[in-house]
Amino acid sequence: MAVLHKVAAPPAQSTASKLKARVKETFFPDDPFRGFKGKPLTTKWVMAVQYLFPILDWVPSYSFSLFKSDLVAGLTIASLAIPQGISYAKLASLPPIIGLYSSFVPPMVYAVLGSSRDLAVGPVSIASLIMGSMLRQAVSPAAEPLLFLQLAFTSTFFAGLVQASLGILRLGFIIDFLSKATLVGFMAGAAIIVSLQQLKALLGIVHFTTEMGLVPVMASVIHHTKEWSWQTILMAVCFLVLLLTARHVSMKWPKLFWVSACAPLACVIVSTLLVFLFKAQKHGISIIGQLKCGLNRPSWDKLLFDPQYLGLTVKTGLVTGIISLTEGVAVGRTFASLKDYQVDGNKEMMAIGLMNIVGSCTSCYVTTGAFSRSAVNHNAGCKTAMSNVIMALTVMVTLLFLMPLFVYTPNVVLGAIIIAAVIGLIDLPAVYNIWKMDKMDFLVCLCAFAGVIFISVQQGLAIAVGISIFRVLLQITRPKMMIQGNIKGTDIYRNLHQYKDAQRVPGFLILTVEAPINFANTNYLNERIKRWIEEESSAGTKQSELHFVILDLSAVPAIDTSGISFLIDLKKSTEKHGLELILVNPTGEVMEKIQRANDAHGHFKSDSLYLTTGEAVASLSTFSKMTAP
Amino acid sequence: MAVLHKVAAPPAQSTASKLKARVKETFFPDDPFRGFKGKPLTTKWVMAVQYLFPILDWVPSYSFSLFKSDLVAGLTIASLAIPQGISYAKLASLPPIIGLYSSFVPPMVYAVLGSSRDLAVGPVSIASLIMGSMLRQAVSPAAEPLLFLQLAFTSTFFAGLVQASLGILRLGFIIDFLSKATLVGFMAGAAIIVSLQQLKALLGIVHFTTEMGLVPVMASVIHHTKEWSWQTILMAVCFLVLLLTARHVSMKWPKLFWVSACAPLACVIVSTLLVFLFKAQKHGISIIGQLKCGLNRPSWDKLLFDPQYLGLTVKTGLVTGIISLTEGVAVGRTFASLKDYQVDGNKEMMAIGLMNIVGSCTSCYVTTGAFSRSAVNHNAGCKTAMSNVIMALTVMVTLLFLMPLFVYTPNVVLGAIIIAAVIGLIDLPAVYNIWKMDKMDFLVCLCAFAGVIFISVQQGLAIAVGISIFRVLLQITRPKMMIQGNIKGTDIYRNLHQYKDAQRVPGFLILTVEAPINFANTNYLNERIKRWIEEESSAGTKQSELHFVILDLSAVPAIDTSGISFLIDLKKSTEKHGLELILVNPTGEVMEKIQRANDAHGHFKSDSLYLTTGEAVASLSTFSKMTAP
Repeated sequence: MAVLHKVAAPPAQSTASKLKARVKETFFPDDPFRGFKGKPLTTKWVMAVQYLFPILDWVPSYSFSLFKSDLVAGLTIASLAIPQGISYAKLASLPPIIGLYSSFVPPMVYAVLGSSRDLAVGPVSIASLIMGSMLRQAVSPAAEPLLFLQLAFTSTFFAGLVQASLGILRLGFIIDFLSKATLVGFMAGAAIIVSLQQLKALLGIVHFTTEMGLVPVMASVIHHTKEWSWQTILMAVCFLVLLLTARHVSMKWPKLFWVSACAPLACVIVSTLLVFLFKAQKHGISIIGQLKCGLNRPSWDKLLFDPQYLGLTVKTGLVTGIISLTEGVAVGRTFASLKDYQVDGNKEMMAIGLMNIVGSCTSCYVTTGAFSRSAVNHNAGCKTAMSNVIMALTVMVTLLFLMPLFVYTPNVVLGAIIIAAVIGLIDLPAVYNIWKMDKMDFLVCLCAFAGVIFISVQQGLAIAVGISIFRVLLQITRPKMMIQGNIKGTDIYRNLHQYKDAQRVPGFLILTVEAPINFANTNYLNERIKRWIEEESSAGTKQSELHFVILDLSAVPAIDTSGISFLIDLKKSTEKHGLELILVNPTGEVMEKIQRANDAHGHFKSDSLYLTTGEAVASLSTFSKMTAP
Repeated sequence: MAVLHKVAAPPAQSTASKLKARVKETFFPDDPFRGFKGKPLTTKWVMAVQYLFPILDWVPSYSFSLFKSDLVAGLTIASLAIPQGISYAKLASLPPIIGLYSSFVPPMVYAVLGSSRDLAVGPVSIASLIMGSMLRQAVSPAAEPLLFLQLAFTSTFFAGLVQASLGILRLGFIIDFLSKATLVGFMAGAAIIVSLQQLKALLGIVHFTTEMGLVPVMASVIHHTKEWSWQTILMAVCFLVLLLTARHVSMKWPKLFWVSACAPLACVIVSTLLVFLFKAQKHGISIIGQLKCGLNRPSWDKLLFDPQYLGLTVKTGLVTGIISLTEGVAVGRTFASLKDYQVDGNKEMMAIGLMNIVGSCTSCYVTTGAFSRSAVNHNAGCKTAMSNVIMALTVMVTLLFLMPLFVYTPNVVLGAIIIAAVIGLIDLPAVYNIWKMDKMDFLVCLCAFAGVIFISVQQGLAIAVGISIFRVLLQITRPKMMIQGNIKGTDIYRNLHQYKDAQRVPGFLILTVEAPINFANTNYLNERIKRWIEEESSAGTKQSELHFVILDLSAVPAIDTSGISFLIDLKKSTEKHGLELILVNPTGEVMEKIQRANDAHGHFKSDSLYLTTGEAVASLSTFSKMTAP
């Protein structure tokens, strides 16, 4: 007879210490203070300050050569940030200058607090779109521009508050529920919605719908064919071709990243000159118009906590906050893994959150780390967050001295810039990859996409998150169960369906369960196992009569009260059929609870617990041969 | 060198056939039509009729001896059903006679369609409470009795529709999301709320609050001390002591089940006689009053689909339908497992649903299988659903001839009957068991309880379900990961923390993941594994330098697109640190997806896939020794 190994329970722990371990693993999986252990108090203080202000990590060792790299990168992203800032502010129905304000203060704040070296901060298309569309439902930006502005700042304040709270409360995992499939579908849908909104500027339509969906926008476009202006359309096509070609060039030869980075500014300059020279504003081409010079003015007096609008601003803040946080953190992580350094998700959230809170008090609307701009920053060779400071200073110079130059900038070129920027959000290879990998993920992706373009941006997102979570729950409700067989000549037991050379062991039904056993699946498991036993018993001949049901619990990470009741019921009902139920390799928590059930009722003696299926089969078949008549 | 076994992928299947298998496992886990295979067409028809009408299973072989048992059981439950029916109807603010109607038609319908042999059907306390409280929010039963009645019938209709649809669409697993812990807490809370409502009758208060919570009811009771009637209180105490004693006797000696079964009817008779003899109604004791004789009248013309009330009735139907379904199915399963026969959950739902639809057209309100009454039925020795028919006939006789006898029945005795019935819903041993087994389940239980008594019955339930689901999601977001070690002298690898005699293998970091790898946990897994690798690398001496990271995927039942990206990223980042990532025993679906990722990018060659940890360690340590300098 083979040597038998006993199943052990993990060392006993008090409820409090278990709870502590659980809380630590849930909220502090990265154990941010592990470096602090055993250091003297002053060192701890220094480390705490360094933890809170990541700028202290790199400033002391900052050198001129690093500065040269950051200067190039900073100027490059500034040339992208200025036209994009103006465009995205218009997308959110805000005055264009707010977009520039938002590219000045937040990058400075992020440079002090942020831990990513590649993130380029500023307004982004999707958050702008969502904020604009949500606020427009309550207030018209044309009729009440001041109130609209107040609501935008207040929403930004709440967005920052939500982001910082998620970071401080270490609830960062909430953004993990936006799966990759959800995001791919959502981004593609949002890109299309954003592009559709640009048809107003690209076609020169004056009376455009205020709705966002595919259907009403296309209806409005077709309905107003008389307003189409051929001069505008001509300009739109030329600049769009130019921008897309620049984008294509930079994608094909990454060394020419500056082509697509500088193209928007070049387009703005060229188009402004054209309008100025040909007085095109008199031929149906709409222009930005007069913009005031000067830096951000304080706006804390504009924050509006009126109960009438509180619900709206909180909701807008929540949605834009979470969406922009998701983008910012994902971008930070992507470039960190490219350069192989760590970005602390929760710390990032605090940085982005504080940046938005400060922003809301200095005439900025919601900002985050943008993917396209960070990619340019990275390609331009940025080394530290100093590139954000350079960008902010460049924007400052623009705000102080160059604003009058934008008077004749045509709106059509801003529309073209937005389209060229958001087209990169439609990631067809990723969609194809999802289709190939997982049909269910593809469905989630499709729902997010269709929801966004046909219903609304927020509801599309909600539907996709709902389906993702429902799918996870369904996996638990209908856990995988497999019949295992012995791989000839070994004591390895594997899934019969997967391994052709695995063979049934006569007299044994060996099952694995691959999910926590809990309230959501005990009924299913019960019915399923009983059906298998029934099938086995009716199929078995005299020699291969079923004697033992082995339940391999290796893949059962947890069990709850319903699960323990299920095991006890199963034990009893198998005994009624003259079978013996054997449990194999229960893991820590499961073993602990089985033991506790044993202390109370004594259902699972040590002779029905084995460490491996091999040992169980070896020991039990000897036993049954001995007792056979 | 040991023999190596290859990891196999399951045989290739088309998407359609995979989908078919998935749908089958999700919706038809019990495979209800497996008996139909290969039978001739006529047999199939006969079987289908038998499937739809379970009465055909037992009627052909019904005998006189079975009938004798059913007669005794039927009369016993009738003596319980009559006073309970009147009481529960009053709990739902409905005329008492509706309670009797509801104990006549639905049991007949269930006898034909139901597959449980022990279920005793009729109105139940919790569904009555919920229906009353939800409908009272919109309509006052005193001011608009007809409208209230119409809404009750319409809600019953929707409850039946929901129940039958869940059965037909085979979505029965939805009720599984009410975990045992949730139900224990919910039932206890509901029992207290129901009991509190009886204080009106027990103390003889005339001006009672219409609210349900613990706080407003107690405030109302204390506020109206002047209305307390000592005669009523005296009667209440006497009958309550009597009923609770009877309950205690039956629980101690199960053979005396009839003591508690007949006690309510005895109390009704005695109290009615007392009131009649002493003219107690003139001394402050409130009585039921005149009741009309006659059987159920049709009520389909009373179903009200007015848009004004449609939302309310649909919501009430949904909540009461799911709650009463949960009770009915759970009771059916409990007694079926005691007598060792199968109850088909989905078929039960159709039966209960149809019974309520028919009920709503014949002046009945929502009914289901009640736990207390079914226990009496079981103890009284019922054999088939015939006992329900006997009960229904007894109620019919009462409705036709005995209604005038209830004129002088005091309301106080009905209150006492309800309290004695619902007190059994407070299951303290179960609460203690939950506390011992699982602190988190206990928290769920407590939340359900506190939510019901302090907020409202529906919201308490919603909170508890929410917490249960959140807990399941949290388990997935923070999956268990373990470091494994070798158990000396074997090739078994187990959790180091759980098994004292498991030892680390120098040069290897062996990790297990115990959850599906998906969008909700890839970030966590990534951070956690990197931290482990970092700790290992910094702790390791020259001899035990880390070379291989083994990821045992035995307990990973599924993986999604995010999960595959995570594996590829991990592979790349470990390579950057000069480590090799080895995957062990990926199960069917996971292996399939790894293979597909391989076809596209070739990340996981066959030399980084092993069938068991033992084989991987054996093969790789030989290899590293060979290549060592």
